[in-house]
Amino acid sequence: MAEVHTERRERLLAGCVAAGIDAVLVTRPVNIRWLTGVDTVQALLLARDGALAAVAEWHRPQDGLTALPTEPGPGPAADPAPLLAAACAGPVLGFEEHDLTVARYRAVAAATGARLIDLDHAVERLRTVKDEEEISFLRIAAEMGDQALGELLESILVGRTERHLAMELERRMVDHGADGAAYPVRVGAGEHSGQAGHQAGDRRVEDGDFVTVSLGACYRGYRSSASRTFVVGLAPADWQVELHRQVFEAQRAARESLVADAAPDAAERAARRVLEAAGQPGEVVGQGIGLEIAEAPRLGPQELGKLDNRVPVTVAVGVHLPGRGGVRIEDTLVVRPSQDGGPELLTITTKELLAL
Amino acid sequence: MAEVHTERRERLLAGCVAAGIDAVLVTRPVNIRWLTGVDTVQALLLARDGALAAVAEWHRPQDGLTALPTEPGPGPAADPAPLLAAACAGPVLGFEEHDLTVARYRAVAAATGARLIDLDHAVERLRTVKDEEEISFLRIAAEMGDQALGELLESILVGRTERHLAMELERRMVDHGADGAAYPVRVGAGEHSGQAGHQAGDRRVEDGDFVTVSLGACYRGYRSSASRTFVVGLAPADWQVELHRQVFEAQRAARESLVADAAPDAAERAARRVLEAAGQPGEVVGQGIGLEIAEAPRLGPQELGKLDNRVPVTVAVGVHLPGRGGVRIEDTLVVRPSQDGGPELLTITTKELLAL
Repeated sequence: MAEVHTERRERLLAGCVAAGIDAVLVTRPVNIRWLTGVDTVQALLLARDGALAAVAEWHRPQDGLTALPTEPGPGPAADPAPLLAAACAGPVLGFEEHDLTVARYRAVAAATGARLIDLDHAVERLRTVKDEEEISFLRIAAEMGDQALGELLESILVGRTERHLAMELERRMVDHGADGAAYPVRVGAGEHSGQAGHQAGDRRVEDGDFVTVSLGACYRGYRSSASRTFVVGLAPADWQVELHRQVFEAQRAARESLVADAAPDAAERAARRVLEAAGQPGEVVGQGIGLEIAEAPRLGPQELGKLDNRVPVTVAVGVHLPGRGGVRIEDTLVVRPSQDGGPELLTITTKELLAL
Repeated sequence: MAEVHTERRERLLAGCVAAGIDAVLVTRPVNIRWLTGVDTVQALLLARDGALAAVAEWHRPQDGLTALPTEPGPGPAADPAPLLAAACAGPVLGFEEHDLTVARYRAVAAATGARLIDLDHAVERLRTVKDEEEISFLRIAAEMGDQALGELLESILVGRTERHLAMELERRMVDHGADGAAYPVRVGAGEHSGQAGHQAGDRRVEDGDFVTVSLGACYRGYRSSASRTFVVGLAPADWQVELHRQVFEAQRAARESLVADAAPDAAERAARRVLEAAGQPGEVVGQGIGLEIAEAPRLGPQELGKLDNRVPVTVAVGVHLPGRGGVRIEDTLVVRPSQDGGPELLTITTKELLAL
C-alpha cells in the first residue's frame, strides 16, 4: 500500500483516538478502498498503534470472522478472534453503524468483547476534500466520458434505440481506458428526455427528438458524471431552443456559485432563481462525487458549514415536460477559491444545443 | 402486483406467524423483489392481517423512515412512525439480521417499540424452490447467453483483447433481449484460462490459446451462468485435449448427479472422484441460482438435507495450471426427479473442445 494510504489511516486514527476510541473497524467497501487502495477485503481493523488487520471474507455469523494478520489480499487465514481481541487493545471499538449488519455486529461484539460505538461517517468526512492526485483521476474520468460522447455525436442516431446508444457509450469509454462506466449510462429520447432516472430502453431516436445522455467513466475507482441534451434533426423547434436556454442558464448560475467558502445551498438557490424567473418548476440536484457518484457534501440547505476547496461536486438542472420531454444538464466540477478563478470544470463537452 | 407475489407474502407470513412473529420487515432488495415484483422500494413491512407498507427511501438515521401506506412505488410519503407502529400490531417484529444495518435497526426499534427477532433467511429459504414461471425466465436467460457465445465463436478472435470480447458478449446478450449481463462477463485467454475469478483485461488472444468464457444473461431479474473453454487455432495441443477431456468428464459426472432427493454434496463428490482419478487438483463449485447468481443451496457437505425438485443450480469444474492456463466448464441446470429424466440442462451450448 502506498504512503498516501498510510497517511489517511493515520488521520482517521488520530481523530478516533482523540474521541476515546481504541481501535477502528471499517467495513464500507468504498471506505476500505480509500484507506488501503485495495478492494479485495471486506473489513479492516486499525489498532491504536497503527497495526492493521484485514478480513478477506465474512463467513456466516456462526463461522465468526476470517482475518489476515498482514497486508490485505485474497485468501483465507487463521482464527481471527485472538487477533481481533489483540488488535482492539482496549475496550472501545469504533464501527460503521450505517454499514455493518446486525448479524456482523453481533459476531464482532462476541469476538472482541469490546464496546462498539458508531464512527459517525468519519471516513466519509475525511474523503470529502480530495488531494490533487484524486482530482487528476476525476479529470481523466471526465475526459473519457467527454470523448465517448463526442464520438457518438458524430454518428447517425436516428433509428437506434436508447439501449444501443448507452452500450456504445460505455464501450467507447472503456476503449479510452476507463475501468468501466461510473453508473449505467442513461439515454432518454423524445418524451424520456430531461429525466434524471430514466433507464435506457427500447425507444428509438426519431427526427426532432430531444435526447438526454447522462454518463460518466470510472478511472482508478474515481467516477465522473455529465448530462447533455441535444436535438436530432436540422432545426430545433422554438420550444426546444427556449427550454434548453433556460436550463443552460440555470445550470450555469449554479456552477458559477461553486467557490470555496460558499454556502452549501448556494448552487441550488442560484439555479432556482433562474428557473423561477422563467416559470419552470425544474429539478436542481448537487452533491459530492469521487469514489462514489453521490457522496458528501449535499448541495442543499440541509448541509451545514461552507464548501471547502478541492471538493469535487456534480450540479444538475433538469426540466421535464410530461409527454414531451425536456432538458437536463449536469457537470462535474471542483470547488476552488474565487481568487484562483473559481470552480474548475472537469466535464468540458459543449453544453450548446447541438442539432444533429 | 401479481397474484404470485401475494401468494409468496402469504406463505412467508404464515411461517412467521406460526413462529410467534407479529409482523415482518424485509430489507434485502432481492427478497423485496421476489415478494413484490418491484425494485423501487427499500423496505417492506408485512403485517399479520396481510397489510403491506413499503418504504421507498431510507433517510439518514435521524430522519427516521419514510413510508408509503399503499402499493410500493417511487415517491415520498407521510410520517412513517405511526404507520410502522400500527402495521406491527404486536410486540414482535421479524427482520433480516444479515441485511439490516445497525443504524437502521436502531431507527426501526425506536419507531415501532417492537422486539426485533431475526428471520433467519426465511425469504431466501422460500426462494430456493422455483415455480415453472421462474424456471422459464432462467431458461430464456440461459438461451440468450448461448446465442451470444455462439455468435462470438463465429468471428475472428485472434488479436482481440479479453475486455473487448467480454463487452461484445454483453452487447450481444442485450441484443437478444437480456436486461443485461448477470455479472461482468469474464474472458480469460492463455495463462488466464481456466480460472473462476479472472476479470477480462488487456491480454490479446493468440493462436494456440485456451480461452475460457464465463457469462450469463439477466432476464426479468433471473440470472443464468455458463462457462466454456475452447482453443484458438486449428489443432489443439495434446495437453489441451487431455485436460479438456478430464474437466468435461468431471463436470458431466457432477451434472448427472443432480436429481431430486440427492445429497447436496453429490455433485461435488462425483466430480472430485473423476478429477482424483486423473490426478488433477481442480476446483468444484456449485450453488443455487435465480435472482442471484449464487444463492441457496450450496452444493457441498456443509448443506444439510436433500436437493429438492425445481431447484436451479450451477455446477462448475475448473483446472488451472499456473503459467499455462486451463479449462473451466460450468452449466446452469434444474434439479428434477430421476423418473422425469433427471436434471434439466438450461445452458445447452456445446461443451465439446472447439478449435476456432
